[in-house]
Amino acid sequence: MTPHHLRLSPQLLSVPEYHSGTTLEDAARRSGVTDFVKLASNENPMGPSRRAVTAVREAARHLHLYPPASDDALRQRLARHEGPEFTADQVVCGHGGSDVLGILGEAFLEAGDEAIVCPPTFLLYGIVIARKGAKAVRCPLKGPGYDYDVDAILAAVTPQTRLLFLCSPVNPTGPLLTADRAARLMERLPRHVLAVFDESYRDFVDDPQAADARAFVRAGLPVVALRSMSKSWGLAGLRVGWGLAPAEVAGYLRRLRGPFALGSLAIAGALAALDDAGHLARSRRLVIRERAWLHRELSRRGLQPVPSQANFVLFRPGRPPEEVYERLLEHGVIVRPAAYFDSPECIRVTVGTRSQNRRFLAALDDVLFPGRAGAAS
Amino acid sequence: MTPHHLRLSPQLLSVPEYHSGTTLEDAARRSGVTDFVKLASNENPMGPSRRAVTAVREAARHLHLYPPASDDALRQRLARHEGPEFTADQVVCGHGGSDVLGILGEAFLEAGDEAIVCPPTFLLYGIVIARKGAKAVRCPLKGPGYDYDVDAILAAVTPQTRLLFLCSPVNPTGPLLTADRAARLMERLPRHVLAVFDESYRDFVDDPQAADARAFVRAGLPVVALRSMSKSWGLAGLRVGWGLAPAEVAGYLRRLRGPFALGSLAIAGALAALDDAGHLARSRRLVIRERAWLHRELSRRGLQPVPSQANFVLFRPGRPPEEVYERLLEHGVIVRPAAYFDSPECIRVTVGTRSQNRRFLAALDDVLFPGRAGAAS
Repeated sequence: MTPHHLRLSPQLLSVPEYHSGTTLEDAARRSGVTDFVKLASNENPMGPSRRAVTAVREAARHLHLYPPASDDALRQRLARHEGPEFTADQVVCGHGGSDVLGILGEAFLEAGDEAIVCPPTFLLYGIVIARKGAKAVRCPLKGPGYDYDVDAILAAVTPQTRLLFLCSPVNPTGPLLTADRAARLMERLPRHVLAVFDESYRDFVDDPQAADARAFVRAGLPVVALRSMSKSWGLAGLRVGWGLAPAEVAGYLRRLRGPFALGSLAIAGALAALDDAGHLARSRRLVIRERAWLHRELSRRGLQPVPSQANFVLFRPGRPPEEVYERLLEHGVIVRPAAYFDSPECIRVTVGTRSQNRRFLAALDDVLFPGRAGAAS
Repeated sequence: MTPHHLRLSPQLLSVPEYHSGTTLEDAARRSGVTDFVKLASNENPMGPSRRAVTAVREAARHLHLYPPASDDALRQRLARHEGPEFTADQVVCGHGGSDVLGILGEAFLEAGDEAIVCPPTFLLYGIVIARKGAKAVRCPLKGPGYDYDVDAILAAVTPQTRLLFLCSPVNPTGPLLTADRAARLMERLPRHVLAVFDESYRDFVDDPQAADARAFVRAGLPVVALRSMSKSWGLAGLRVGWGLAPAEVAGYLRRLRGPFALGSLAIAGALAALDDAGHLARSRRLVIRERAWLHRELSRRGLQPVPSQANFVLFRPGRPPEEVYERLLEHGVIVRPAAYFDSPECIRVTVGTRSQNRRFLAALDDVLFPGRAGAAS
């Protein structure tokens, strides 16, 4: 053992690890299969924006230079993307949305504080809370529609509550927080609580009932709207996310950013992607169309898919999900058993292209209904 | 104002901002000149490793996929680079060395703690300390050689001391911590203090007297050896740095890393750069040769350059540095006035190629010695 007497934080030592979806490398190692369809991590089946790829390749030429001293230019462009009424001082950038979550925890949580989460939900919220020695107060989503329980959330608020994590559309289930519910919540939420609207999947929403956190930012309420370039933009590998918030909150969060927080390639790629509206629109159309098709196919197999507004569908295979996951792996299809997401009977599958989705369904039929040939239509 | 009652941290609100070197864009805006030699940020005049650029461009194709779930492969390669006796569990990666510094602050500092810094030194240490509400205890470098004052450092340690920041070679002055002094320090340093050896510039050292923090890591002492790919590797824009430490310390620091902390391009570029030993060797040779030449040229002008083991030289222009800096800007040369670094009478100039260095000296002669034509030889 190390001969030291350093003070290590017991809460940090007890933080649970984040488990990501199975990667292609892991899958190949575990199954021996080499040709995979990866529908485990909600990645964009259309690939990255070509403009972003071109911009990254061009910027690579100058990698010996430091990135711009500030990320002002990117924040200005992001603000414009959010709407004409927003400005760069309302934006804080991070290495993916998960980094912005980490900054929120750093900035607002201390040991003894409370933060409200609504499971099943994205597990990183719990990790961010645990890392600071704060307490996660759980207000589960209600009923088969996984609805936010506004009254329960309001009842759970105490003077120690600092953050409220709202995921919409919800990962891993797919439904969203409605505008009605959000308005009722924000009207009554005490102003010492910062509401984090994680809208990482919002570009895939086609339900006009959806809440839009920008309305609350516009009103200057204590709200952060969280965005990610990892899904609809097809840039999960680039690590770019941002938060939109009232200027005072965004400026406070920026104080936690080190110098040169975003690298040159992330800035160049993100700026180019923001100018590639076509890629975003095509990604959105593909997901909305394929999500509906996949939902129908899972429904007619009796697998109870949850209506989704994101680029994934949660369903009940009727068999232990871990076992189904392993069998699908042998068929060259990677999905995500959702036990880890507080959904022990479920599997989450990312919406792919039609051919990927067909391959997934054919494998699923082989695994679940080995007698019934040709269930995949 | 925002209608909120959020608890904001007064220490975070009072953190000073980090000021980076003038960028090409800023310089052009301020001076109207468009053709610049940038010798302000200690960037590599040879440019990035070609292998790294090629690897980044290739990896850009798959930007829609998440990075590897863990950075094990990179940490293994970095450990091998450090020496055959090191292993991946002794490495923690970050977005540049500055990010590793931020993690160190997060992991080890709380309000009321103390951390020792030895000015003039890298200013980010002070920012990291201030961010946590800890106290920076100053033990200035001594004499014209900017020597570490081992006795003063040892005398400054209290039960509240958590971190000791040692920069070697020192930014912005250039000298180094000698092996003798480091050994004497580490022999007597109480084991509740973590010594951070920031060796970001170590690849430019040619003095055999230099301390090498790896010896202390090898011995299992509470030490972190900090590395950066921003200087000798020519990858400042990619944001890759790491810390080498006893496994228990490195593992503890890794707990503060979010998922997918390093992006796909950073991992691919860093792995390729590590295999490009030729680029590193050429960068090192260029800097060592040009540093000596630049030192002689500054000396013979009576500008008192400090003997440097890094890729920059600190000198005294004999006139207000801010004024000299502004005049050099008009000549298309960007340097760094060092007031910000606790060196109010000095300018720091990065070692460039011979032609860049000549251009800098010609401009400097024009500014300082307008009568004496042809001082640059």
